[in-house]
Amino acid sequence: MKPILDFFFFYGSIHSYLSVMRIDSVADAAGVDIRWRPFNLREILVEQSNTGFTKNQIRLNYNWRDIERRAKRMTVPFVGRPSYPVDPELLALRVGVIAASENWCAEYSRATFQSWFIDRKISGLVQNVEEVLRKIGKSTQEILARAVSPEVTDLLKRETDAARKLGVFGAPTFASGSEIFWGDDRLEEAVEFARRP
Amino acid sequence: MKPILDFFFFYGSIHSYLSVMRIDSVADAAGVDIRWRPFNLREILVEQSNTGFTKNQIRLNYNWRDIERRAKRMTVPFVGRPSYPVDPELLALRVGVIAASENWCAEYSRATFQSWFIDRKISGLVQNVEEVLRKIGKSTQEILARAVSPEVTDLLKRETDAARKLGVFGAPTFASGSEIFWGDDRLEEAVEFARRP
Repeated sequence: MKPILDFFFFYGSIHSYLSVMRIDSVADAAGVDIRWRPFNLREILVEQSNTGFTKNQIRLNYNWRDIERRAKRMTVPFVGRPSYPVDPELLALRVGVIAASENWCAEYSRATFQSWFIDRKISGLVQNVEEVLRKIGKSTQEILARAVSPEVTDLLKRETDAARKLGVFGAPTFASGSEIFWGDDRLEEAVEFARRP
Repeated sequence: MKPILDFFFFYGSIHSYLSVMRIDSVADAAGVDIRWRPFNLREILVEQSNTGFTKNQIRLNYNWRDIERRAKRMTVPFVGRPSYPVDPELLALRVGVIAASENWCAEYSRATFQSWFIDRKISGLVQNVEEVLRKIGKSTQEILARAVSPEVTDLLKRETDAARKLGVFGAPTFASGSEIFWGDDRLEEAVEFARRP
């Protein structure tokens, strides 16, 4: 059986972009299975009073420059800063939770981040979620109805609780058992850890 | 002439430790000269209202675990969390500014961080600064007197202004011209950038 690495990420997180786009190829090459686990990072940031970074323009400017440089190094497409923030009502996230429970989260998440970063569409607006779902061949009406159901609300809460319990404070975070690695720049280290004997 | 990389760091910064200990060997191997530039990160963090991280125990716990793992990967000694915070009156920093102006900053800084992280002594307390100076063969009384002089106050202010002007918001930060790279994990990328044709 292949080792498993949990991939905690958030649809409104600019730093999750690089990992969403490249994690499957890194993991495939290393023989590791990825469990895609979208969670509500916004809730955790608010709990930890960790939202000041959104107001620090100096740091935000650096973050975008860093993403641009790293995208180039890793041949992930990047065409400049997209809109931020996105997913105002967590609709992209709620659909992601369904996708994760049915094993189509990788495809859905790549399509969602590509729509945001490359096609410049704001993730989470109904028409944009519908467009992403159509693109990957899913039934839009049924999924959008389930996305706001109590069952999906519960599932999202459980996943966010799981992240909180591991000590997750940002995204992307990779977890192998109780060992966590924060940031796309720790992906290779996390994969290596997951493969340890 | 060798390319130059500016190394902005702070004596109270736990994240500066790994870079202080390994930057010279990384730069030597790449044929890059390092300009050691201690600055007052504390002033910049306060200006940017970026001090919340010191109260976020979840994130601090992760940071220490990350430093421990990375120290092991890079064969830098690590024997557990030292005291934090340190250098209460910036005396270690003021001596570092003198050291940088006289080209003994690498040796002084490694000795200071080793005293903090390995010998478990609080950086910046007078007796500890004296001990570090004696260890590297410097005249303690003369240097401690100059450290609090108006000239060194000015020099420190100029270096902190230079960091601020570049958009530095944390330490360690590496700068090649106006291009900055934040974090020990960006050291190799920064060295590579400095060597570009």
